[in-house]
Amino acid sequence: MADIITLTTDFGPGEYVGAMKGAILAVDPDATIVDIDHNVRPQDVRQGAYLMFAALPAFPFAAHVGVVDPGVGTSRRPIVAVCEGAFLVGPDNGLLIPAARRLGLKEVRVIANRSLGRKEISDTFHGRDLFGPVAAHLLTGTKVKDVGPAIEDFVDLDFGRPRKEKDAFAGLVITHDRFGNVITNLPRSLLEKGWSPGDRLRVSVGGYEVTVPLVRTYAEVQPGEFLATYSSSGFLEISRRESSAAAHLNVVAGAPVHVARLRGQG
Amino acid sequence: MADIITLTTDFGPGEYVGAMKGAILAVDPDATIVDIDHNVRPQDVRQGAYLMFAALPAFPFAAHVGVVDPGVGTSRRPIVAVCEGAFLVGPDNGLLIPAARRLGLKEVRVIANRSLGRKEISDTFHGRDLFGPVAAHLLTGTKVKDVGPAIEDFVDLDFGRPRKEKDAFAGLVITHDRFGNVITNLPRSLLEKGWSPGDRLRVSVGGYEVTVPLVRTYAEVQPGEFLATYSSSGFLEISRRESSAAAHLNVVAGAPVHVARLRGQG
Amino acid sequence: MADIITLTTDFGPGEYVGAMKGAILAVDPDATIVDIDHNVRPQDVRQGAYLMFAALPAFPFAAHVGVVDPGVGTSRRPIVAVCEGAFLVGPDNGLLIPAARRLGLKEVRVIANRSLGRKEISDTFHGRDLFGPVAAHLLTGTKVKDVGPAIEDFVDLDFGRPRKEKDAFAGLVITHDRFGNVITNLPRSLLEKGWSPGDRLRVSVGGYEVTVPLVRTYAEVQPGEFLATYSSSGFLEISRRESSAAAHLNVVAGAPVHVARLRGQG
Repeated sequence: MADIITLTTDFGPGEYVGAMKGAILAVDPDATIVDIDHNVRPQDVRQGAYLMFAALPAFPFAAHVGVVDPGVGTSRRPIVAVCEGAFLVGPDNGLLIPAARRLGLKEVRVIANRSLGRKEISDTFHGRDLFGPVAAHLLTGTKVKDVGPAIEDFVDLDFGRPRKEKDAFAGLVITHDRFGNVITNLPRSLLEKGWSPGDRLRVSVGGYEVTVPLVRTYAEVQPGEFLATYSSSGFLEISRRESSAAAHLNVVAGAPVHVARLRGQG
Repeated sequence: MADIITLTTDFGPGEYVGAMKGAILAVDPDATIVDIDHNVRPQDVRQGAYLMFAALPAFPFAAHVGVVDPGVGTSRRPIVAVCEGAFLVGPDNGLLIPAARRLGLKEVRVIANRSLGRKEISDTFHGRDLFGPVAAHLLTGTKVKDVGPAIEDFVDLDFGRPRKEKDAFAGLVITHDRFGNVITNLPRSLLEKGWSPGDRLRVSVGGYEVTVPLVRTYAEVQPGEFLATYSSSGFLEISRRESSAAAHLNVVAGAPVHVARLRGQG
Repeated sequence: MADIITLTTDFGPGEYVGAMKGAILAVDPDATIVDIDHNVRPQDVRQGAYLMFAALPAFPFAAHVGVVDPGVGTSRRPIVAVCEGAFLVGPDNGLLIPAARRLGLKEVRVIANRSLGRKEISDTFHGRDLFGPVAAHLLTGTKVKDVGPAIEDFVDLDFGRPRKEKDAFAGLVITHDRFGNVITNLPRSLLEKGWSPGDRLRVSVGGYEVTVPLVRTYAEVQPGEFLATYSSSGFLEISRRESSAAAHLNVVAGAPVHVARLRGQG
C-alpha cells in the first residue's frame, strides 16, 4: 500500500517545503507526498485548520502534516492526533483539531520520543526536523504508543458556534476562496433542519446586505447574481455566479455574518 | 507501470486541489499525481486548453484531468477524450480538445456511468467527485466503453485560424508566460513554408509596432531587444531578451496580432 | 529504491514545469518528482542557488535538476555536478555549485552525450529536452562517465566572502523569505567563534540600523521586536517576531549588511 503523506503549511513555495519533503523521503523513500497548500496566510492557524478540515476527508489512509506554527521554539508541544484512518502531525495550537474531529479523533499524543526526529532538531523548523519525519515513521512501522503519552489538555479549536435566532443564524466568515466564494461557519446540518433550496435569505456581512436564493447550483441564477449554496465542505457559502462575492462584499476572515430566512416561505 | 495522472485546473492552491488528489488516491493509492498548473485564470477555458496543449505531449501514457468549469452543475456534460496513449477527462466545454487533437483524438465519450464517481456527486465540485476518480478508474482497469456512449457533438475549441495575407499573417495572442513571452496562434508549420530564421518581421500588437528578427535563440539579439522565435509548443512567439515583451507591448490574451515579413528578404 | 528527482526552476507554475515532468516520466515512469520551487525570480541565478543550497541536504540519494538559465541557447554548457549521494543537473552558470559544494562535490561533467536528451533538443527549453531526461537516465542506470568529460573550468558561484572587522562582519543579503526573515551570508561557523546567544548586535542594512539580540528562538523576544538567529541553512538571519523584518528594513537581495557586536558583552 502506498504511504501517503499530505502537507499543509504557511511556508510558501521554496526551500522550507523542499527540505521538509527531503526529510520525509530520508525516512521513507517510497512515500507519496501530496501538497495540500503551502500558501496559508503566515501564521493564520484558523485558515490552515480549515484547509485541512476541507481537504482531508477525501483521502484514503494517510498521514497528514500541518505546519502553521507561530509558537515554534516555545513550550508549545508537538502532537499526533490519531484518527480513524489517519494520523495528523503538527503543533499543539488547534491547527489539527477541526480536521481530526471530522475524521474521527481517537486520541492526541505528545511527540516525546525525539529519536523519531532528525538528529539535530532546530528551534525554528520543526516541519523538517520533527513533524515530517514523525509522519514518515508512523507509516513505516512505528507504533503510536511509542510516540509519546496521550494527553487530554491539547489546544482545541473550532470554527465558532453560530447563534440561532428566530429563523436566522449569526455566525462568522471562515475564509473565502480564489473564486470569491465566502465560506461561513453555518453548517448544513444545522440549517437543513428548517431551510431548503428555494428559500430566499437575507445575508448581512461586511457592512452589506444582499438577498439571495438558497440554491443547489450556480446555474440557477444569472451571471453576476448572488446566491447561497452549501460548500463542498458542508458550510453555507455566499457566492456570485461568474464573479466574486468576497470582493463585492468586502469580506475578511472572521467577519460576522447574519443570515435570515425571509418570511412567507417554507 | 506507473499510473500517471496530471492535473490542470483553475482552483488555485488549496483545499480543492487537495481534495481532488485525495479522491484520486482513494481509487488508486499508487497513482503518481503530477501538477501541471492550478493557476489558470478563473474560468478561462482557453488558457487552460493552451496549458494542456503545451504540456501533455511530453508525457508517456497517462490520464490527464482538466477542470476549468464555469458550467459545473448545469447540463454541460462530463467527458473523456480518448487519445493515442492518453485519456483526457473533464468538462465538455472545449478545454480538453486542443490537447486531445494534438495527441491524436480517437473518440469522445460522455461519462454516463456515475458509479465511477464518488458516492455523492456534488453539483459544484466535479473535479473531486467525478473527473479525478474517473481518471483513476481508467488507469486501474475500467474499460473506456464502460464510461458511457461516444458522442460527436462535443464542444470544439481551437486557438483560431490565422488569416494569411500577402507575406503576412493576422492572428491573435493565445497567452503570455511569466518571462513575458507573447505566444501567438501562428503555427510554425504555416510560417515555415515561406519564412526562415534571419527574416525581419514587423509585428503589430497591443497598439504597438516593433520590427524584430526571426531567430533560433535569444542569444542572437542583445539584452533588451525584441525577437521572434518558435515557442516550445510550436507557435510564433514574440520575446524580449532578458526582459518582458508582454509588459512592453501591453498584451492581453485574445488581442489581435499582425505579423508581416519585411520586403527585400528571403 | 525510489528514484527521487527534485526540481528548482524559475518557470513559474505552468506548462513548462508540466512538460519537464512529462519528459522525466517518459524516461523513468517510476520517478518520484519533488518540487522544490518554481518561483525563483526570473533569471535570478543566485536565488535559485540559495534555494538548492538550503533544501537539498535534507534529501536521501536523489538527482536534483536546477533550471535558472538566462544563457539557454548560447554556448553555455549543460553540466552534471556529481556529489556524495546526489547528482545535480543544470546549466553551467553557477546555479548548482553552492549546493554541490555543501553536499560534497566530486566532479563536474559536461553533458556531451546528446542521446540522453529528447529526440529534438530545442534551443529554448533544455529543462524539458535535456536536464530532466539526463537526471532520469542517471537514476536508471546511465553511468556518469557516459554523460561526458569532466571539466575543471565550470562557472563557480558562492554567496560572497564576508569581511571580518574588529568584532564585526560586513557581508550581504542573500535573500528573504515570505515571513520577512532576512538571510545574510554570514555563516554560523564564522560567527560562533566569538559570538553567542545573549550578545546584542547592531545591524545596518537597507539604510536602517537596528539593535537586536542574538537568540535561539523567536520566543525570546516580544511580538514586533527584531532579533538575530541562525537560519535553518546555517546563516545569520535578521527577523522580527510575528512580523516582517524585510519589509521594515526595505531589504533587497544583494544589499550590503554590517553586523557589529555591542561592547561590554561576552
